[in-house]
Amino acid sequence: MKLFGYWRSSASYRVRIALALKNIPYDYEPVNLLKGEQKSDAYLARNPLAVVPTLETNDGALITQSMAIIEYLDEEYPETTLLPGNAVARANARAIAQTIACEAQPFGNLRIQKYLRETSGFDDQAMSNWMNTWPGGAMKAAEKIINRTGGDFCVGDTPSLADCILVPQMFASLRFGVDISQMPRLNEINERCLKHPAFIKAHPDNQPDAVKS
Amino acid sequence: MKLFGYWRSSASYRVRIALALKNIPYDYEPVNLLKGEQKSDAYLARNPLAVVPTLETNDGALITQSMAIIEYLDEEYPETTLLPGNAVARANARAIAQTIACEAQPFGNLRIQKYLRETSGFDDQAMSNWMNTWPGGAMKAAEKIINRTGGDFCVGDTPSLADCILVPQMFASLRFGVDISQMPRLNEINERCLKHPAFIKAHPDNQPDAVKS
Repeated sequence: MKLFGYWRSSASYRVRIALALKNIPYDYEPVNLLKGEQKSDAYLARNPLAVVPTLETNDGALITQSMAIIEYLDEEYPETTLLPGNAVARANARAIAQTIACEAQPFGNLRIQKYLRETSGFDDQAMSNWMNTWPGGAMKAAEKIINRTGGDFCVGDTPSLADCILVPQMFASLRFGVDISQMPRLNEINERCLKHPAFIKAHPDNQPDAVKS
Repeated sequence: MKLFGYWRSSASYRVRIALALKNIPYDYEPVNLLKGEQKSDAYLARNPLAVVPTLETNDGALITQSMAIIEYLDEEYPETTLLPGNAVARANARAIAQTIACEAQPFGNLRIQKYLRETSGFDDQAMSNWMNTWPGGAMKAAEKIINRTGGDFCVGDTPSLADCILVPQMFASLRFGVDISQMPRLNEINERCLKHPAFIKAHPDNQPDAVKS
């Protein structure tokens, strides 16, 4: 199994957390987004949207989209499942994941920030307002959902799909100036995850393509 | 079971297609987005992000996020499943759904269009460029994935989660001026779906809260 990813990409980070929680061995092939490697013909044949991650399965099948990859891993490697044991809790884990992946992450993506700055004339203040309105607003909503579903982690007391998505978004929020100081539950869960061996293994700084600042 | 939705919301439309394909009876409670009913205290308690849809289950549990709702319905009502029979095909159905739900739909959402026009000074041309770069670009990528996974529908010859997400996005694309003329596979599948009784039942124009123009 091979993961095509990039150390700082939050969607790649999500999949690495799932792989580490499930203790699945895999090869890692970095795709350097700064050098535009995601737009090479070879990579576009794997991922037509020119984004990371992509998973190449042991049989050579190509799977895109981080949440689809995590669900695939959970089906094929059911030990240490990332989906809770009952249907409503599973739905909550997916709903929290999607609140972040469909309502927060897209608006903070680097290619969107670049477009808004270069094409739409956003200055630092406009960019900050955008980040705090859209990614920040969705994170606030996630906090409210987790207030009713969470325990030690986003849904109950075991890491799930939701935590695989939350932690990279907290990383991106700090990086891109989204104010997360008023989200105590998200911070508490994030701190707990950051001490967990699987989350440490998956952290951007611990990847072979990490660039030390 | 009760669905809180809005006739023209593409995320509500997705869930209605799934309910109709699976022939699940449900009550429908319209949330009038134009009147701001999604921001009422009663609705925010159900859906902290102030978006539709929300599903209230027979046991009173609240589930947000359209793809999470559809996965819940598929687990609880496994007859006429919306997920294909093998793991890679299931992953493809989810990846196509997420390519649209995470990479196309968010950028074309009405509240984002409103923000860009009112706060960021987008005129009609800037709006059109945005819509065709982001939602349009993601739809082009979906077309390429479907070129390798599709049959009569997005994945093989049976409607799946992916078709529940595609058809509302085609509806939104036409409504908001995304050029989909160069996406022959998406158009062909969309046309087929639009003649299917379940997709007809779920169409915005056939909902009790539809406003005839």
